[in-house]
Amino acid sequence: MNVTVRGKTQHYRTVTFDAPRNQVCLIEQRLLPHEFKIVATQNFRETAVAIRDMVVRGAGAIGATAAYGLAQGVRAFRGNDLKRFSRHVETVYQTLKDARPTAVDPVNAMNDVRAAMTRGEAVAEQQAIALAAAEEFANEDVRHCEAIGQHGAKLIRNGMRVLTHCNAGWLAFVDIGSATAPMYAAQAKGRKFHVFCDETRPRCQGASLTAWELAQQGVSHQVIADNAAGHLMQRGEIDLVIVGSDRTLGRTGEVANKIGTYTKAVLAHRHGIPFYVAIPLSTIDWNLKRGFDIPIEERSDYEVLGAWGVTANPKPKTRNLKPGKRAYIRIANPTSTARNPGFDVTPAELVTGLITPVGIFKPGDLWQRRKDLMTSQSERRS
Amino acid sequence: MNVTVRGKTQHYRTVTFDAPRNQVCLIEQRLLPHEFKIVATQNFRETAVAIRDMVVRGAGAIGATAAYGLAQGVRAFRGNDLKRFSRHVETVYQTLKDARPTAVDPVNAMNDVRAAMTRGEAVAEQQAIALAAAEEFANEDVRHCEAIGQHGAKLIRNGMRVLTHCNAGWLAFVDIGSATAPMYAAQAKGRKFHVFCDETRPRCQGASLTAWELAQQGVSHQVIADNAAGHLMQRGEIDLVIVGSDRTLGRTGEVANKIGTYTKAVLAHRHGIPFYVAIPLSTIDWNLKRGFDIPIEERSDYEVLGAWGVTANPKPKTRNLKPGKRAYIRIANPTSTARNPGFDVTPAELVTGLITPVGIFKPGDLWQRRKDLMTSQSERRS
Repeated sequence: MNVTVRGKTQHYRTVTFDAPRNQVCLIEQRLLPHEFKIVATQNFRETAVAIRDMVVRGAGAIGATAAYGLAQGVRAFRGNDLKRFSRHVETVYQTLKDARPTAVDPVNAMNDVRAAMTRGEAVAEQQAIALAAAEEFANEDVRHCEAIGQHGAKLIRNGMRVLTHCNAGWLAFVDIGSATAPMYAAQAKGRKFHVFCDETRPRCQGASLTAWELAQQGVSHQVIADNAAGHLMQRGEIDLVIVGSDRTLGRTGEVANKIGTYTKAVLAHRHGIPFYVAIPLSTIDWNLKRGFDIPIEERSDYEVLGAWGVTANPKPKTRNLKPGKRAYIRIANPTSTARNPGFDVTPAELVTGLITPVGIFKPGDLWQRRKDLMTSQSERRS
Repeated sequence: MNVTVRGKTQHYRTVTFDAPRNQVCLIEQRLLPHEFKIVATQNFRETAVAIRDMVVRGAGAIGATAAYGLAQGVRAFRGNDLKRFSRHVETVYQTLKDARPTAVDPVNAMNDVRAAMTRGEAVAEQQAIALAAAEEFANEDVRHCEAIGQHGAKLIRNGMRVLTHCNAGWLAFVDIGSATAPMYAAQAKGRKFHVFCDETRPRCQGASLTAWELAQQGVSHQVIADNAAGHLMQRGEIDLVIVGSDRTLGRTGEVANKIGTYTKAVLAHRHGIPFYVAIPLSTIDWNLKRGFDIPIEERSDYEVLGAWGVTANPKPKTRNLKPGKRAYIRIANPTSTARNPGFDVTPAELVTGLITPVGIFKPGDLWQRRKDLMTSQSERRS
């Protein structure tokens, strides 16, 4: 999407590949929203470190980064010895896989690239195929998000006030995003609407990343405390909710997403407000039988007990600190501990519809449409 | 309640009066939870500044501070001239009233003291009555909280997990608190239970003040992000909710309290979890006809866009900053704005019961019990 730096507006993807220099170029997401910077990794090991240290995060974005990282490593090989080449490819693959051991997207993305490489023979040919396959993976991620946008845009009418939670935006994918895709598509059609971004404690991805994205695209928006959505719904100030999903169960339509999503679904249900979940097909899990069995990651205390940002001077003024310094502050009582579940599960009955690249439908209809959906999924895997 | 400073445990009230020195002594709440300090105001003007600048906050606490501040100002008068004395009392009253112009508690408290003073004649006599009346106001605040605790303690059984929101603790009153009173009373009866403190963004009173209070009393507790309660309820990890109230409508039983309270009530209702509101009688509004008409204060952007705390070193480490410095940090995108409603209104249908100093009853029963309740209220005003 567009980013304006020092008055100059330019289109950026979250992840790109510089073929002449054999570099993976990433938006340094840890600096956002306070600083916009592109970093280039010099080799696959640096790319693995960038994934591990969360320079880049979000399912689609780390998938594409791993695919590009694999191509980068593969292309750095010198010589024609196929046996040595094969061992080298395995090393690159393992290094990138180990960067985020529990994430499934880098593995799926790299498997795509490796499967494509089997069509080549000589080292040089396989190297060329690897890059083409990585590019195709990234482009398909973008096409899927575009399709989500086209289907979802019809939900956003003029004058609507839309609530979103966390960041399921273009920074989490290669471009466009999932929950944000309908917003960008509606904006492109000239529709006027307003977005409320849940702050999304404890990591505040809504206040920092989603608000930054929307500001860069010129979408009217405001940040709200996670506590405020219920009140706004009660007063009739929210017309539509769109969120993303980390995992959606094909059998039940249950949606796992960032902690707090379930609360928003319960509130929307009470107030008769449509609650939509935008999902790339890759997030559908056809195996798990019930949402209760989705493992909910318990994250570190310090996320809840404090917050990250940059020092600033509101009124009342900060004492003793220069503004503009990056800082973690402790907010909570220093002798207290925290519970910090990272995700929650929203039952299908609270979800009005799933916005997918192949259309919008009820979560309960996923299972009967599984053949179509699995075919669309496996096109990506072929 | 008890506070342990450098290994020494001592009982403190939020507000006390040092008669020999004619000083109002306050816990400096702006430093909590990071530092515990008692400040003493030298005269009524300093007491007004302490109320204005929120050294002390919370309905009962600022009521008692204003009552003591009035006595302090009255006692500082030298001479026997009743006319000059009367003008002086008026100045003291207005100065303290203007410190928090929209708050009703300081005015009610000072009216109590002034009404008592009419029973005296000479200046010295009125001065003595003023102090006695202020002490009585503070003591009655404590007795009411104690009574809430005794009635509410029966709700907390062994092994229960109790959720609370914001700070309706002893720091908001003279001692004991409202929502926390049943917890302290249950603890005194030897019951074992665990409290989840909602962080309560944007000002984080749950993470900072309630967690500090509970830690000082040795009550088992954890801080959670406001987003996490829904998930914990869904997984059966919360048995009871107790919150405070800023205003409860006598006619409808609707409860206005800190933003986010309504959300917790909706979630508790969905999960069949009892939701209780602890209310001192002074918060009952017998006039307003519907909750929708309660004015909801829209507060400053900077509360939502950032946070206050002290610099600290979690892993990943803070760069460039010394730990332990008080700081405000900007979290949100710097070009975004915020909506920041300070309170919300919970309908009576979501409230299992009101815990009052005179017993627990259904919010819908307030109106038919109004004679009893108004009598109890006016005892305080006589």
